[in-house]
Amino acid sequence: MFELAEIGNSLSKEEHKKQEQELRPALIEAQQEMKKQKKFAVIVIIGGVEGAGKTETVNFLSSWLDPRGVEVNAFGPLSEEEKERPRLYRFWRALPPKGKIGIFFGSWYTDPIVARAFKTIKKVEFVNQLQQINSFESHLHDEGVLIIKFWLHLSKKAQIRRHKKLSKDPKKSWRLSKLDKEYFKLYNRFYKVSEGALRITSTGAAAWNVIESENDEYREITVARTLLDAIKNKLKEKPREAPQPMPIPKVQPHSPLDNIDLSKKMSKAEHLKKVEKLQGEINILSNKAFERGISSVLVFEGWDAGGKGGNIRRLTMCLDAWHYRVISIAAPSQAEKAQPYLWRFWMHLPRDGRIAIFDRSWYGRVLVERVEGFCQTEDWQRAYSEINDFETQIVGSGCVLVKYWLHVSKEEQLRRFNERKKIAYKNYKITDEDWRNREKWNAYLVAVDEMLARTSTDVAPWTIISANDKYYARVQGLRSYRDALARALKKSGKKVKSPEALKLS
Amino acid sequence: MFELAEIGNSLSKEEHKKQEQELRPALIEAQQEMKKQKKFAVIVIIGGVEGAGKTETVNFLSSWLDPRGVEVNAFGPLSEEEKERPRLYRFWRALPPKGKIGIFFGSWYTDPIVARAFKTIKKVEFVNQLQQINSFESHLHDEGVLIIKFWLHLSKKAQIRRHKKLSKDPKKSWRLSKLDKEYFKLYNRFYKVSEGALRITSTGAAAWNVIESENDEYREITVARTLLDAIKNKLKEKPREAPQPMPIPKVQPHSPLDNIDLSKKMSKAEHLKKVEKLQGEINILSNKAFERGISSVLVFEGWDAGGKGGNIRRLTMCLDAWHYRVISIAAPSQAEKAQPYLWRFWMHLPRDGRIAIFDRSWYGRVLVERVEGFCQTEDWQRAYSEINDFETQIVGSGCVLVKYWLHVSKEEQLRRFNERKKIAYKNYKITDEDWRNREKWNAYLVAVDEMLARTSTDVAPWTIISANDKYYARVQGLRSYRDALARALKKSGKKVKSPEALKLS
Repeated sequence: MFELAEIGNSLSKEEHKKQEQELRPALIEAQQEMKKQKKFAVIVIIGGVEGAGKTETVNFLSSWLDPRGVEVNAFGPLSEEEKERPRLYRFWRALPPKGKIGIFFGSWYTDPIVARAFKTIKKVEFVNQLQQINSFESHLHDEGVLIIKFWLHLSKKAQIRRHKKLSKDPKKSWRLSKLDKEYFKLYNRFYKVSEGALRITSTGAAAWNVIESENDEYREITVARTLLDAIKNKLKEKPREAPQPMPIPKVQPHSPLDNIDLSKKMSKAEHLKKVEKLQGEINILSNKAFERGISSVLVFEGWDAGGKGGNIRRLTMCLDAWHYRVISIAAPSQAEKAQPYLWRFWMHLPRDGRIAIFDRSWYGRVLVERVEGFCQTEDWQRAYSEINDFETQIVGSGCVLVKYWLHVSKEEQLRRFNERKKIAYKNYKITDEDWRNREKWNAYLVAVDEMLARTSTDVAPWTIISANDKYYARVQGLRSYRDALARALKKSGKKVKSPEALKLS
Repeated sequence: MFELAEIGNSLSKEEHKKQEQELRPALIEAQQEMKKQKKFAVIVIIGGVEGAGKTETVNFLSSWLDPRGVEVNAFGPLSEEEKERPRLYRFWRALPPKGKIGIFFGSWYTDPIVARAFKTIKKVEFVNQLQQINSFESHLHDEGVLIIKFWLHLSKKAQIRRHKKLSKDPKKSWRLSKLDKEYFKLYNRFYKVSEGALRITSTGAAAWNVIESENDEYREITVARTLLDAIKNKLKEKPREAPQPMPIPKVQPHSPLDNIDLSKKMSKAEHLKKVEKLQGEINILSNKAFERGISSVLVFEGWDAGGKGGNIRRLTMCLDAWHYRVISIAAPSQAEKAQPYLWRFWMHLPRDGRIAIFDRSWYGRVLVERVEGFCQTEDWQRAYSEINDFETQIVGSGCVLVKYWLHVSKEEQLRRFNERKKIAYKNYKITDEDWRNREKWNAYLVAVDEMLARTSTDVAPWTIISANDKYYARVQGLRSYRDALARALKKSGKKVKSPEALKLS
């Protein structure tokens, strides 16, 4: 992979100057067009060998580009808030919005490559992390992000020449860091590990550009031209066709949900007794979970008027106020629309020991967005596996994940709609939209069935609640979370924490 | 202050029910109007004695209000990312945007009151923190935020009754936490300290509502009605008149800046030598500062084409990429516009050891916004002391603050504008707006003079750079930061860290 970057590519200072005259204004123009269109973000990854000019590349890009359209992200040791979330959280946090370029100096590649070179992770874990990166980049790509990955390469001989040159000049020797020297001792290992990483992660969504980097002029011009060409091509992409709403089946389709026994009931008195007992238990268990750093993500989905709010309140009543946060998902804000679909959910993942309660969630993609035609067919189709990936990362970071589907019959929904219309302070909950959604019941049913089938996984199964009777439903809801917490606590005795991320940029 | 909240106020269940019928729909309606107007945010602070029903109040408000328009914030121990910023950072981070209600359960009052009750801070520090809170709330209020502060009070006797009642019922005893019992032992101290805090912080901008809290029905209805009345009054406020641009003096006014010697020069060769030396020194010093957790905030202000970009690049070339971040300040985004003026700058304050470089800054308020009439006269007038407060907090948290004014003559600016027009890739830097700004030179000069006079403080003096010669200016810029770093490092031996915030909500 690196052979073509060891052949002595170079450019004269004059040639560099000439090309600069062409490239700089063209890059500025491309940026202005990006800003105008606000249709996609660009991610530029600057990876490569220590000393191959990564800092210099970031600096020259910063000086060539309009700085108002660029965000430079470099990554030091993980902060506590980052450590307590899944591995990719810090990168999600740093994604550029549509219309901007995010330069990543140090990226999601740094940790796996360094860890593997120092042999702190096994090959299988290394490959596993790289495949997770492929899914991540593929999601970004499908969401319209342009990813351009540069690998700056220096042959071993070129590296030696550089060390000699810098050490001789006392004014420049600070440019040769301790890390630099330490990494050089492992040149061969880094060579092999990096080549493996690049091979696995050179995908259609985001291929690597390996750049020979001994000659500054050649490196700069090649990076600039590659970047310019990629942005210009992306700018030329045709807009996608407007998505279509889902056709509504005339007859209510057969559904596995028909097998849910909706006649289950509980008296108010019995429910009060049980709720009180479960709340006490959850209070104690959740405090223990907090102490052990076990976080929870609870997802409440269900038919309109299925009782999500009431269930959530029964739960929060027994939690410490600063342990939990309820996230009501409505239409995305401008800042959220400028990011890939899963971004806003990532931003709400809880810290260790905390509880994030989602009142509606990322499942909107395969429910309302699919039914209403807010996204393209291919978008909701790829969402199932993206969601499964996402949830695997949540659970993999040691978090308890419970997903509720509150199931009511069409008749019970009608009864509740009418009841809400009558009570002044519940009135606002029933809008024309709810009545329109109700007319699309059959389409939603198809979407719900497919969602339950395709996202009920080993690590993240659905909890389906028979919710025609609200008392019965609330007790089931609390019980499921209590049981999930108890299981997690039991397991946590044997819990193996993932090896702490290496403290390297 | 608490006498009126110990007289046995109570409401019957029936009366509560009756008032609920009126209040709930009215609150929902007020929320909908807030959402429509998107003109102000509401902050509800729930403070008070342990056991006075703070959690219950948060829960009942959450259930009465439309949850999509409410954010509940509770505060546990400070995270590392919060610890490394000034004390109020975590609250800035949690401010609700315009159109929403932020409920603060635990707030900026918790730490000072608890610390003083446990005598971990002296009275003078206590009062100092409360005065900082007054400035903070006053800024929020002036930016249109409606602040409603509730203090839930229980007399000592009522407190004792509550403890007895809860301890007797085994199913409810978990509601009586260890903290609860511990605090109760200090009831008298908390009483005295809270009363002092409330007295100092009951201001016109945000007065306290002390609520007798033994009777749940009375507490709920009083809180709901107070909240409703406050929001309704705020909704009725008349819109402010459109602000006016500043008149432009016909003759260039006399200015203390006339005394700056703009003839200072340096040869390219000498500048290169000095820049290289200074960069080496800054590299070493900034790495030491990083190790000791000393952060920096650098502010670059100056005339258009004054050389901010060039100065910033000379600096970043010698910094570790993940230690610094350049923040280019342009027109605020939608999310930033929905927040008080200083919010977006708070969000960019650096963590310990990091460097935030502002390319333009919060001074926009008293420069471009004043001259162009983007804000009201009273807004830029109050900005001077708000900025001084803000900078005092930055410096007080142990951060190095350097503020540059890059000063060039009107003639030199013209020369640079024309030069930029000729170079293709610099063309984009000169817009019609720059030419228009230039026509307002005299108005800007008045604004700059007043800014320098009113925000040059002991803790945060301005560094004025004679910048007609870019080589001379760059060397001065680097030298000032090197010196500031060196001074901070020298002092850091004796540096007294503020006592770690108490780990209490």
